[in-house]
Amino acid sequence: MSKESKIPYKIYLKESEIPSKWYNLRADMKNKPAPFLNPGTGQPMSFDDLRPVFCDELIKQELDNDTAYIDIPQEIQDFYKMYRPAPLVRAYCLEKTLDTPAHIYYKFEGNNTSGSHKLNSAIAQAYYAKKQGLKGVTTETGAGQWGTALSMACAYLGLDCKVYMVKVSYEQKPFRREVMRTYGASVTPSPSMETNIGRKINEEFPGTTGSLGCAISEAVEAATSTEDYRYVLGSVLNQVLLHQSVIGLEAKAALDQYEVVPDIIIGCAGGGSNLGGLIAPFMGEKLRGEKDYRIIAVEPASCPSFTRGVFAYDFADTGMVCPLAKMYTLGSGFIPSPNHAGGLRYHGMSPILSQLYHDGYMEAVSVEQTSVFAAAEQFARTEGILPAPESSHAIRVAIDEALKCKETGEEKNILFGLTGTGYFDMVAYEKYHNHEMNDQVPTDEELQKSIANLPKVGN
Amino acid sequence: MSKESKIPYKIYLKESEIPSKWYNLRADMKNKPAPFLNPGTGQPMSFDDLRPVFCDELIKQELDNDTAYIDIPQEIQDFYKMYRPAPLVRAYCLEKTLDTPAHIYYKFEGNNTSGSHKLNSAIAQAYYAKKQGLKGVTTETGAGQWGTALSMACAYLGLDCKVYMVKVSYEQKPFRREVMRTYGASVTPSPSMETNIGRKINEEFPGTTGSLGCAISEAVEAATSTEDYRYVLGSVLNQVLLHQSVIGLEAKAALDQYEVVPDIIIGCAGGGSNLGGLIAPFMGEKLRGEKDYRIIAVEPASCPSFTRGVFAYDFADTGMVCPLAKMYTLGSGFIPSPNHAGGLRYHGMSPILSQLYHDGYMEAVSVEQTSVFAAAEQFARTEGILPAPESSHAIRVAIDEALKCKETGEEKNILFGLTGTGYFDMVAYEKYHNHEMNDQVPTDEELQKSIANLPKVGN
Repeated sequence: MSKESKIPYKIYLKESEIPSKWYNLRADMKNKPAPFLNPGTGQPMSFDDLRPVFCDELIKQELDNDTAYIDIPQEIQDFYKMYRPAPLVRAYCLEKTLDTPAHIYYKFEGNNTSGSHKLNSAIAQAYYAKKQGLKGVTTETGAGQWGTALSMACAYLGLDCKVYMVKVSYEQKPFRREVMRTYGASVTPSPSMETNIGRKINEEFPGTTGSLGCAISEAVEAATSTEDYRYVLGSVLNQVLLHQSVIGLEAKAALDQYEVVPDIIIGCAGGGSNLGGLIAPFMGEKLRGEKDYRIIAVEPASCPSFTRGVFAYDFADTGMVCPLAKMYTLGSGFIPSPNHAGGLRYHGMSPILSQLYHDGYMEAVSVEQTSVFAAAEQFARTEGILPAPESSHAIRVAIDEALKCKETGEEKNILFGLTGTGYFDMVAYEKYHNHEMNDQVPTDEELQKSIANLPKVGN
Repeated sequence: MSKESKIPYKIYLKESEIPSKWYNLRADMKNKPAPFLNPGTGQPMSFDDLRPVFCDELIKQELDNDTAYIDIPQEIQDFYKMYRPAPLVRAYCLEKTLDTPAHIYYKFEGNNTSGSHKLNSAIAQAYYAKKQGLKGVTTETGAGQWGTALSMACAYLGLDCKVYMVKVSYEQKPFRREVMRTYGASVTPSPSMETNIGRKINEEFPGTTGSLGCAISEAVEAATSTEDYRYVLGSVLNQVLLHQSVIGLEAKAALDQYEVVPDIIIGCAGGGSNLGGLIAPFMGEKLRGEKDYRIIAVEPASCPSFTRGVFAYDFADTGMVCPLAKMYTLGSGFIPSPNHAGGLRYHGMSPILSQLYHDGYMEAVSVEQTSVFAAAEQFARTEGILPAPESSHAIRVAIDEALKCKETGEEKNILFGLTGTGYFDMVAYEKYHNHEMNDQVPTDEELQKSIANLPKVGN
């Protein structure tokens, strides 16, 4: 009997096997991600430049392209024990339904109240803020998982938490606000009238449903104008991908126990936090030439940074108060159709993943949302987990790849990231059930227009 | 180093340690639960009497007071592997916050999309319906967990599922309906105009917000008037407590691995499914005189069957279409104040638990909802899980007992059942946050009036 035939439905690592170090993918990249630039001077942002915005320790992590492994402080490890290790699930039921020879695995990060993997970085960022003696943090949230995660981490540590929530999500997910309030956070729909940039955007675009880029601007303004506050961000940044490496490290450890090597690794990509975390140790092997994996980023057709964006320096936010980042971008003014449900709405992409994609280490595909919800429903009915719309982008492509295996008869191992649950996405599910959901992708003209506004600096 | 000092935050059994047999508590009861009576004849309901309503195999389980262990069919065991074993959690963070010498453990059943333990019995009941060649099942749901669980089980097995949802929950939990629809179920607010009994109740009590008892009547009517359908119920019944014994069996196995013996076992009690399941193996030891445990049922002060009801034969439903059950009851016409949030709204109680309570094997306390939500919020902020209002009744009393230990310095082991998550209860949490929630308990006069309507038969 082979090891693989004994694989349980869920592989749980022991508590002692939760990673005690994060893996810093950048250490193994030949072409490092490009540095942030000061939009005024065009110079790389230094430690001191970033101090008004971020905590000191997090800036160090942000700028560290060399240290491969970074210790996870004991307090963060203890917090991880509350909801980790996360299970690696063998999707036996889905395989049977699809009648595929492929073996499908998913790393499920939704078994915590934030409903997603976001908690992995939230606790780290809140911890360093607390350690620096700060009073509180500000942030933005799109689909709401990040805001919830940060609220939970702040409640645990006794930090203030102020969340700017993209208006369309705030309206589509009325109960997310109450979850955050349960954890003591304050939640403001963005663009708001509380900040200069919010007032300006509301004036220029009356009735706007907001965007992550705009909420980021507001949160940064709120942090830098309040004493003993800093700004924290749930995706895109190098530090976030570092923290999220626990996803991939755990997934790889679980697969290694059963000597399973994935052929294809699939993750949804908005700002890149889940995908970057999931693939980290696998990509490390690939970069070091030890192993090869097919790695696929899946993004919404309505916000196609990788597949239809350009690789260039751009503002990280709509209000242009943040540094410039070199990344795949649709232009910082890009706002996806309000018809687009759920998260993955960011105009840009993690600089790390952008560089890796640019260098050919991974692929990207975009999928339309009705096909995403069809996959979500099929998954829910067979695997028993109601997935987040974001995660369902990965499910869609995992199912497609498994069906290709059915045609070819190949027994491929497919691993995907199931980042979270869709309990707060029922408005979107309702639209899907009522056939009121459609697919609306930006036209070439719209993208050209929004990409034409890239800054001169750095490009 | 003692074994206990090595207890992890979460104890997960291995997949191979998921129970392969249910434990039937009744086999160890000296005084068996009283049989259902035919309301017309006053005679115990026979297998044949029950066949129009329930599946054959489930009737056998319902009537079996003697077989201690009943095999769990392989198909159900396979389904259990999708979301079980459920973790037994050591509440280190809560202990620290309370600064108590008590050791607190909870069995967490909310890590599945139904959000509760209800799935344990839903899959069993759906399985036997399918095995009997039926087309579908009907049921009622209060807080919505049972309806969701049944929808999930039916989707997995390809059975039709028709749910009557108590109107107040239907309105307070608009998204529950969409979850059930995702799993292909049809959901009707109860009382509806679709059934005779629904129309009658709507006529007699215009504007009623419904009750479980009334939804049961409608579901039974719908099942018995549709070919190849049967009725299934998520609580109260002996068969349900049988299926739910997996909760207690797993909890006990996990505690046994670390040689932990609980001093106090606490569970919320609506119809009794969670409490009956959690305590099953412990109560078995108590009944056999092998061990002693303090066992506490916690119920809402607004629906106090144990603490203010009478032990008598009563209708299981408002419409009086069901058999009579001997149980603690507030009268089948009792409807809790619409001000009461969430579940635990049933006028009666499991006949098994009623008999055990009557015989002095367990205690019962009632708690008011504002104190329940205070406990829920404290728990969420320390343990990271946003609990269901129902589960939070048990949390309230577990915290109270832990605080008593703080006064006395006793290192008691407290085990409670955390039946589920509150992601669909944010309307209630919002009320609590906005200080719009109050405590409204029935007056003695109200209870006397509703209890005065007990049937003559059996009493």
